Amino acid sequence: MTGTLAWHLVSRPSGMPAMADFELKSLDLPPLGEGMVRVENRWLSVDPYMRGRMNDVKSYVPPFALGEPLQGGAVGTVVESNAPDLKIGDKVQHMLGWREQAVGPAQLFTKLPDLGVSEEQWLGNLGLTGGTAYFGLLRVAEAKEGDTVFVSAAAGAVGSAVVQIAKAKGMTVIGSAGGADKCAFVKELGADAVIDYKAGPVVKALMDAAPKGIDVYFDNVGGDHLDAAFACARQNARFAICGMIGSYNDAEPQAFRYIMRVIAARIRVQGFIWTDYLNEIGDFYRDMGGWIATGQVKSRETIREGIEATPQAFLDLFSGGNMGKMLVKL
Amino acid sequence: MTGTLAWHLVSRPSGMPAMADFELKSLDLPPLGEGMVRVENRWLSVDPYMRGRMNDVKSYVPPFALGEPLQGGAVGTVVESNAPDLKIGDKVQHMLGWREQAVGPAQLFTKLPDLGVSEEQWLGNLGLTGGTAYFGLLRVAEAKEGDTVFVSAAAGAVGSAVVQIAKAKGMTVIGSAGGADKCAFVKELGADAVIDYKAGPVVKALMDAAPKGIDVYFDNVGGDHLDAAFACARQNARFAICGMIGSYNDAEPQAFRYIMRVIAARIRVQGFIWTDYLNEIGDFYRDMGGWIATGQVKSRETIREGIEATPQAFLDLFSGGNMGKMLVKL
Repeated sequence: MTGTLAWHLVSRPSGMPAMADFELKSLDLPPLGEGMVRVENRWLSVDPYMRGRMNDVKSYVPPFALGEPLQGGAVGTVVESNAPDLKIGDKVQHMLGWREQAVGPAQLFTKLPDLGVSEEQWLGNLGLTGGTAYFGLLRVAEAKEGDTVFVSAAAGAVGSAVVQIAKAKGMTVIGSAGGADKCAFVKELGADAVIDYKAGPVVKALMDAAPKGIDVYFDNVGGDHLDAAFACARQNARFAICGMIGSYNDAEPQAFRYIMRVIAARIRVQGFIWTDYLNEIGDFYRDMGGWIATGQVKSRETIREGIEATPQAFLDLFSGGNMGKMLVKL
Repeated sequence: MTGTLAWHLVSRPSGMPAMADFELKSLDLPPLGEGMVRVENRWLSVDPYMRGRMNDVKSYVPPFALGEPLQGGAVGTVVESNAPDLKIGDKVQHMLGWREQAVGPAQLFTKLPDLGVSEEQWLGNLGLTGGTAYFGLLRVAEAKEGDTVFVSAAAGAVGSAVVQIAKAKGMTVIGSAGGADKCAFVKELGADAVIDYKAGPVVKALMDAAPKGIDVYFDNVGGDHLDAAFACARQNARFAICGMIGSYNDAEPQAFRYIMRVIAARIRVQGFIWTDYLNEIGDFYRDMGGWIATGQVKSRETIREGIEATPQAFLDLFSGGNMGKMLVKL
């Protein structure tokens, strides 16, 4: 029996996770039965939603089991195959991340089509990140040409994709980010205005940046950003609620001073998970593939090296340690 | 020139309004020009939304002007007419309430059709109250047979209509109200379960009353009730946000502990004003007229007598002084 190094969840974090909640140890790999493959991972994805899976509560994905290896998006290469549809050297995408090698039935691994894009993009703009941005902005919030769109965490993985998609579709975009470097990056992505949320109250900055109000809010953080969006919403504004990273590690309730505007402005607030829209994924690949080809949507990654770096890369998501997509390269 | 007694707004309340914000004084009535009528009011409506009009802020209805007479729904009888379509004795509905007599162009007054219902119902179940309940529940929240519906302020004007409409449509209904008398009333209206919000935390009571969760929340109060609905929402739950009476007089932000469930449960939160649905008012009159005729929707009023009683009737809305619709009878 062979083994691989894999990160295990050894205690359930309360509040912000710590390195001690994770342990890198050997994981026995099962023998390669009929129809199974062995994959050497090249890229691991760390994403804010994983924090939710570390709690023992029912949510849209089941919780990680204590003492078991963690999971997450990964891209790798088939190094051994007992399955007819996958051969050695094939590039595949799958959910057995947080480890160096993965073994399982071939159905768990999706062969990457040859679109001439770098393989890690399948974890970013052509994967969860881009899909969340695309369906959230265009389907959930029904954003359209001419709309004024506010995006929080605009320098993050999903946020930076939202900014670029919105510009590709002819919208006016206001992005928020923390600090001068990130704000410069958001501006570079094409945002018409940028708010540095560390420089002062978001609601005041948003009122200045969008004196006529916003039609759409793409929420990655909740809290004061969501409240500012309530304050500045135009009639019939639509909010796509994608994440509330500000609260994932925080047991305190969120306070809203402007939520009552939901009524007068007829705001629609809608939570979503991008996989709700998998039946429309053809549209996504067509549009996103086109934007990547023309350079209208560029990818930006923050890359950490080696399996050892994985949990810290994950933890850094919550302190704003990434520009664009956070990835671990093996 | 003749005059009438009318309540004027003499100062803008901050927080809970006080009697001193209102003054009953003589209002000069203009001469009856061509196309105008004079109406003797019989019934005045007081409604929570009027609180918003007492602030000097842009909202879905313009603010009341300081020093001017207040306005609001009213039903009265034409006592003098210079208009071809309205004759003396006609019953009409209009927005020149808070006064004994109203004079204006005939277009401001809508003749009541003879449906065999008592005239004050046009301010209640056949007016703003019933329309808000009907469109909010069936159009905004898209509630349907078999759904579990939670309604706050269920003993109030709109809430009691929501309870009855939901039961007429085959839904399971949980209503909240404050105190034993009101809870008994909500039960009498047909609610399957009743929560006394004065008896303990709403979230716990709602979890007990709806162990499988709720599909629809009809929000009249905001705050802890809305948070409880977030906590108990089933997948794809729909919230119709009609009012947040708990916050109309309160500058404190509202705190939400469970708002993050919007994402995992894909909750849709939608604010509305019933007049957004006026193009479907034929459906409303047909359905509501039918339910009133069969007794499936009954009206309950809290009636105060005389023009002098108007502001106190309005103030009592915020301390729960009404069961069903609050009206002033002249």
